Amino acid sequence: MNTVTAGVLLIGDELLSGRTQDTNLKTIAEFLAPLGVQIGEARILADEAEIISANVREFSERFDYVFTTGGIGPTHDDITADCVAAAFGLGIWQRQDAVDELLKRYDPDDLNEARLRMARIPDGASLIKNPVSLAPGFQTNNVFTLAGVPQIMRAMLEDVEHRIEGGAIMSKRTIAVQGRGEGDVGGPLGEIAENHPNVSIGSYPYFDGDGYGLNIVIRAFESSELDKCEAAIRKFLSE
Amino acid sequence: MNTVTAGVLLIGDELLSGRTQDTNLKTIAEFLAPLGVQIGEARILADEAEIISANVREFSERFDYVFTTGGIGPTHDDITADCVAAAFGLGIWQRQDAVDELLKRYDPDDLNEARLRMARIPDGASLIKNPVSLAPGFQTNNVFTLAGVPQIMRAMLEDVEHRIEGGAIMSKRTIAVQGRGEGDVGGPLGEIAENHPNVSIGSYPYFDGDGYGLNIVIRAFESSELDKCEAAIRKFLSE
Repeated sequence: MNTVTAGVLLIGDELLSGRTQDTNLKTIAEFLAPLGVQIGEARILADEAEIISANVREFSERFDYVFTTGGIGPTHDDITADCVAAAFGLGIWQRQDAVDELLKRYDPDDLNEARLRMARIPDGASLIKNPVSLAPGFQTNNVFTLAGVPQIMRAMLEDVEHRIEGGAIMSKRTIAVQGRGEGDVGGPLGEIAENHPNVSIGSYPYFDGDGYGLNIVIRAFESSELDKCEAAIRKFLSE
Repeated sequence: MNTVTAGVLLIGDELLSGRTQDTNLKTIAEFLAPLGVQIGEARILADEAEIISANVREFSERFDYVFTTGGIGPTHDDITADCVAAAFGLGIWQRQDAVDELLKRYDPDDLNEARLRMARIPDGASLIKNPVSLAPGFQTNNVFTLAGVPQIMRAMLEDVEHRIEGGAIMSKRTIAVQGRGEGDVGGPLGEIAENHPNVSIGSYPYFDGDGYGLNIVIRAFESSELDKCEAAIRKFLSE
């Protein structure tokens, strides 16, 4: 089975200071799951050029696809486009097709130097449509550079989907176990995991008004493998 | 001014699959800010032993403090304690003081092999109290290993605070600008940022029912520097 992977770089001091709660990672994960792409790692980076560039380069090599969010607006701390260009040793300049997108929204008189920063695109990149505020994202090699504002980021994914060559899709089942904690099932579950190496088994405890409970989530590419694993789990639970 | 930094490692496949929305990073950031500790980077890691160990080692060298969340429960995919031990080349074994904590909650008969996993602690680590579910976290060198469940993670921070030697605290001011976007202010703000190198200036656009707006947030260690920077921004905004 081919496994297709993605790495995600969430860029912005505000995500590290506690000011802003990231939600883009979950949105990207939910977008990728039905395409058969698994996120292998995500990093939340400060607005520091060298660190961003180094991470873009590293993730581009480690993963099939890379997503960056944030830092493509018009202000001095919006440096992601320059960092992506630097990561690949590419030039970056103001591109007319990106300016044309901006002109759909702004009067030419309002298209000041700051806003024109949003039309600076790494050499050879292809634009990613932004139907919300028009300043485009872009694709450079296997790296998709998207906005940080969640509504805009989500909208840009629409123009990413057709560029993804997905993988096999894992099926998933959830077995709810009320009134037991992870400690009750941890030992046998570990044994079952060893006996079903192609099934990924996770357990997720919850608290609610009635006490503790557990969701056991099993994932595999083949539903026959899920059948066997689920049977083993239900057998153990009924003992 | 001394800057004290922290790195955060959020551990768990469920954070990368879209199943779970992390909130621990924001909680840790809000806990650290009044102590004068800034988070420099955060990473969200899959449950893979070698990757977790390598990241613990790297972050322990890069940052003054490291926080890990997740992976210290009783199931087969709870491998963080082993990974922290491996990162520092330490042994790991079941410790009586950790067992004693568990016995406050569990009958000896219920303290099965899986639950006893939660008493496996790297050599020389000091325990971090868990007043919610009693299975302790632990500190190894400059690394704090905490639970992933947000309520438990938050409670454990109470027993971390006295271990942190904090730094200078940045003051912060927010200048709200209704009806302007980042593109209207990006150029002048960049100039102001250059003229006030000790002030960190961020701008955070928002949408609401009335359209666009902007919060300009300035941070500095010295309030006199904030005064000058705020005056420069307000002067430009009133022009």
